[in-house]
Amino acid sequence: MHIDVERVHIDLAERGYDILIGAGLLDRADTYRDLPAGASAVIVTNEIVAPLFAARLQAALANRFANVRLIVLPDGEAHKAWPTLNTIFDALLAAGCDRKTVLFALGGGVVGDMTGFAAACYMRGVPYVQVPTTLLAQVDSSVGGKTAINHPRGKNMIGVFNQPLRVVADLDTLDTLPQRELIAGLAEVIKYGPVADDGFLGWIEANLEALKARDKAALAHAIKRSCEIKAWVVARDERENDLRAILNFGHTFGHAIETGLGYGVWLHGEGVGCGMVMAADLSARLGLIDAAYAQRIRSVVERAGLPVVGPALGVSRYLELMRLDKKALAGEIRFVVIEAPGRAGLRRAPDALVAKVLEAHTG
Amino acid sequence: MHIDVERVHIDLAERGYDILIGAGLLDRADTYRDLPAGASAVIVTNEIVAPLFAARLQAALANRFANVRLIVLPDGEAHKAWPTLNTIFDALLAAGCDRKTVLFALGGGVVGDMTGFAAACYMRGVPYVQVPTTLLAQVDSSVGGKTAINHPRGKNMIGVFNQPLRVVADLDTLDTLPQRELIAGLAEVIKYGPVADDGFLGWIEANLEALKARDKAALAHAIKRSCEIKAWVVARDERENDLRAILNFGHTFGHAIETGLGYGVWLHGEGVGCGMVMAADLSARLGLIDAAYAQRIRSVVERAGLPVVGPALGVSRYLELMRLDKKALAGEIRFVVIEAPGRAGLRRAPDALVAKVLEAHTG
Repeated sequence: MHIDVERVHIDLAERGYDILIGAGLLDRADTYRDLPAGASAVIVTNEIVAPLFAARLQAALANRFANVRLIVLPDGEAHKAWPTLNTIFDALLAAGCDRKTVLFALGGGVVGDMTGFAAACYMRGVPYVQVPTTLLAQVDSSVGGKTAINHPRGKNMIGVFNQPLRVVADLDTLDTLPQRELIAGLAEVIKYGPVADDGFLGWIEANLEALKARDKAALAHAIKRSCEIKAWVVARDERENDLRAILNFGHTFGHAIETGLGYGVWLHGEGVGCGMVMAADLSARLGLIDAAYAQRIRSVVERAGLPVVGPALGVSRYLELMRLDKKALAGEIRFVVIEAPGRAGLRRAPDALVAKVLEAHTG
Repeated sequence: MHIDVERVHIDLAERGYDILIGAGLLDRADTYRDLPAGASAVIVTNEIVAPLFAARLQAALANRFANVRLIVLPDGEAHKAWPTLNTIFDALLAAGCDRKTVLFALGGGVVGDMTGFAAACYMRGVPYVQVPTTLLAQVDSSVGGKTAINHPRGKNMIGVFNQPLRVVADLDTLDTLPQRELIAGLAEVIKYGPVADDGFLGWIEANLEALKARDKAALAHAIKRSCEIKAWVVARDERENDLRAILNFGHTFGHAIETGLGYGVWLHGEGVGCGMVMAADLSARLGLIDAAYAQRIRSVVERAGLPVVGPALGVSRYLELMRLDKKALAGEIRFVVIEAPGRAGLRRAPDALVAKVLEAHTG
């Protein structure tokens, strides 16, 4: 079956760029043809992804760059921290890379977030390209320019907004993705439905088995529609003044789970999946949606194979972790809630109500 | 004697801001009146500056912010590195600071560079204000948005462009500045003459004794004219594509001295002073200016009390360090040279010629 190359544009004036979505893009020379010229390209990847795709990307880039170097990071969310970021700087400096060097983030969200942050900071900024190889990165983290490392006190606390030159989402890279990671990526796909497009939620419900079975046409549609919604939001609110926050549906609860358990115990998408169940229930308890819609969200999360019951960290620990969420203001947590099917907003909620949600969905 | 408040605007559209220059600005409530409202302000300073000015700034800010916290860093260029930057993040997170928190950099270039970088990265960006208390920071480092930390392999290698909301240059803070630091600041004042305004160089030559004696009117003029020149350049080339590089006259040699000796052995301004002597000589050897103009630059640097002979690191070590300069491209060093009195540009130079310059001015 042939999948055309799809192109979604992120309209941010001089920082605007395209997301390319298609099968086999990684190897095609024309994927990289109009990137700025420079002496050096550096592929940043991890120990799992490197043996799968690094040589192919290196070969494709050799047409454009005199030197194509490779930096291999350890794998996993636990390494999304300063010591790992600094190994990128060390390697760039040891290789004498100048400020026209182009970085390529080859991997999932952790690699993308750290490479984008490193690109922002190396010599006060070098360009970079996202080459996401996980579903989660293709539908969410590689798009929109959020970069960060974690801090022991909170996820993604240290970072910058730094848009890439391009996103290259090669569907074929999903072939080797472990099933647990594919399912974690589905959490971010599901997210786009309740917050922005109830019709898309219906499509996901109808195609969930095909997505889990990695049907290429289903994946291509899910990725394209996810990127379209994200592009629309990011173009209107690049630096998350408010609107963009809706893309964090489920993330306030989810980040608390991730940080509370220690990074890497649950995958990010697993935290988001369970967090959406909690946030949907909170929306219902706030009287914004009826219980049936919250149940519909819970049901698609569960059918995807994602966790719907959070770890028993205790209500007070959850609240403490969530007060440090980046959306919080003056110590008050602001939750992304569903205001109506396909529409989200930011709301405060009484601690007592949040406690009820946590008691109902942890254990 | 009464010194009026001078205002120099940095024209960067929505990122534009004012530099306020005057005596006693630190304490005046109206210095801070139209800053964005937020629950928290955090003053970042160091152990030397804190006892001098922190309480006064804290009192002035208490009118506008419900909480005004203080973070005190160790003093010195040797601490302009990740561990110190991370103490800022730790303190902000421990205090539950949200992303409307405003940071105030109270101190010299090291405090300003680290606070600006921390502001760029904390929760992907909080606003900050520069309150420079050294001459070097008031005429140069607090203006223009360059922020960074050092890396063992090179100065200012890790950082971002991040413009402050305002620069508050209170002349009275210079009263307590050690003479060695005042003189180091004069290096950056002198710099603006040969690169942009030969008439200003003449004014500096005529007023050098007054500046060294901290005559307030002379300092006020030197700071204002320096900021005007910097504002003009930064407005035309915020991210240093080329024009802005002229402000790094003397810095390629100077950074090599600083990095080669270990951070903090020479002050930054001392490295720049000696580096200008070298870069002026290189300009003469390239046939761009006559030897008399290079000698004139050497003479004003020497009269200021700055070093004019660099440490004997060896030619090859100097070249190695300079090849990692951020202006270098593909391993070729680009020097800021004087093309004519009051005009600078970027040039490559043969290693053999640079070696002659180094042999003549080190020992």
